[in-house]
Amino acid sequence: MAPEQITLYTAKICPYAQRTEIALAEAGVPFKRYEIDLANKPEWYAPKVNRASKVPAIAYGGPDVPPESPSPKSIKLAESLILVEFIGDLYPSSNIVPADPVLRAQARFFIEIVSTKFSPNFMKFATGNPETTHVTVLTGVDAIQDILPDGAKYAVGDQYTIADIAFTPFWARLNLILQKGIGAYKDEERKSFLKALEDPKYTKFNGYVQRLLERQSFKSTFHEDIVGEVFTKRFGLAK
Amino acid sequence: MAPEQITLYTAKICPYAQRTEIALAEAGVPFKRYEIDLANKPEWYAPKVNRASKVPAIAYGGPDVPPESPSPKSIKLAESLILVEFIGDLYPSSNIVPADPVLRAQARFFIEIVSTKFSPNFMKFATGNPETTHVTVLTGVDAIQDILPDGAKYAVGDQYTIADIAFTPFWARLNLILQKGIGAYKDEERKSFLKALEDPKYTKFNGYVQRLLERQSFKSTFHEDIVGEVFTKRFGLAK
Repeated sequence: MAPEQITLYTAKICPYAQRTEIALAEAGVPFKRYEIDLANKPEWYAPKVNRASKVPAIAYGGPDVPPESPSPKSIKLAESLILVEFIGDLYPSSNIVPADPVLRAQARFFIEIVSTKFSPNFMKFATGNPETTHVTVLTGVDAIQDILPDGAKYAVGDQYTIADIAFTPFWARLNLILQKGIGAYKDEERKSFLKALEDPKYTKFNGYVQRLLERQSFKSTFHEDIVGEVFTKRFGLAK
Repeated sequence: MAPEQITLYTAKICPYAQRTEIALAEAGVPFKRYEIDLANKPEWYAPKVNRASKVPAIAYGGPDVPPESPSPKSIKLAESLILVEFIGDLYPSSNIVPADPVLRAQARFFIEIVSTKFSPNFMKFATGNPETTHVTVLTGVDAIQDILPDGAKYAVGDQYTIADIAFTPFWARLNLILQKGIGAYKDEERKSFLKALEDPKYTKFNGYVQRLLERQSFKSTFHEDIVGEVFTKRFGLAK
């Protein structure tokens, strides 16, 4: 059975949405891309595509219709991690979902660490939560470095998988705001953060994230200028 | 490749751990079961099995050793939902992970609803959180009923899957405490809750949860007396 049409509702600014775009790029899947303005969502979006009114969401199958007129006959799916695995399941040759059950479990565990120990602190740091310093965010970096295998290119081996896809957009955004001083934190926090990452104990982590940012599927789906501009408007600049 | 030995670290009281036990029962897998006393965990458990010191966890493969002397050569895996999918991936004939990518995504979305809209409120209700009434918990019931397919036996069709496994132990515990009046809430809350569930609008939901509680894999892994006793000690009785 040939996979059916895929319409992706997404937003360039959103790290969750970018996960799905990376998965589609890794799988080399043709799809219709529809940008949702998160500050001004179309009124048909929640009732016809995703009740939770969030991006990303996919309309899968059904007739060939314009994205802004979703058909009730297509299947609507949401939640970034679910969509990433869905793309991997539809296109096993992408190898983003490891075939081996152990590697698959380890990839999902890596995602659990990202979701519980890294992403929440990153968001708090960017928005200037007074209790979240660079040291807090570094605990997430430590947790990730701890489970990175030695001598491998990616999160669970030499293959780029769902684990890497889940982390890449978040790391890219943290890296961008630290490089540009975007965010509602003190500039000395930014300098201490960058300094701390230079410590040789992060050699493995630094090599890993460098490979993440060099990945073509990431580069082709990351809109640095737009992310920088929107984050600056939203959070301001470090002082 | 024949699957290797599985040692499960678990606890009869814990709904997360029961998920893994149900999956193993569905797959008909032989495994070593080791009960962890959650109030007094063995000192080897965190360093040798699960750093997070939670149940469930699995030691997979490696030499045939007693559970209380875990080998560094076995692979240690944790997090209930990851373990459930791991069992399903190891034993595809269990059919708990649907083969169809769409059904698989829908099963994972059902789990997302359970994890975000049902389980947290259930725990708050049982522990007597003053802002969590039976009406709050019913919003989770509503969310689940909303996505239950019409005319099907289980969460995503007639096959019992990871979606049902994720929900069953939580529903079983809520059902038990409501029937027995266990929990730090007012008895009138309990009566209102049971009364509300009798509303014909919950016919689909009630049929569904009845099938969940009749499932052999659930019954053989649910220790009602122990759960009732420990919950009574922990939360007290409704007043």
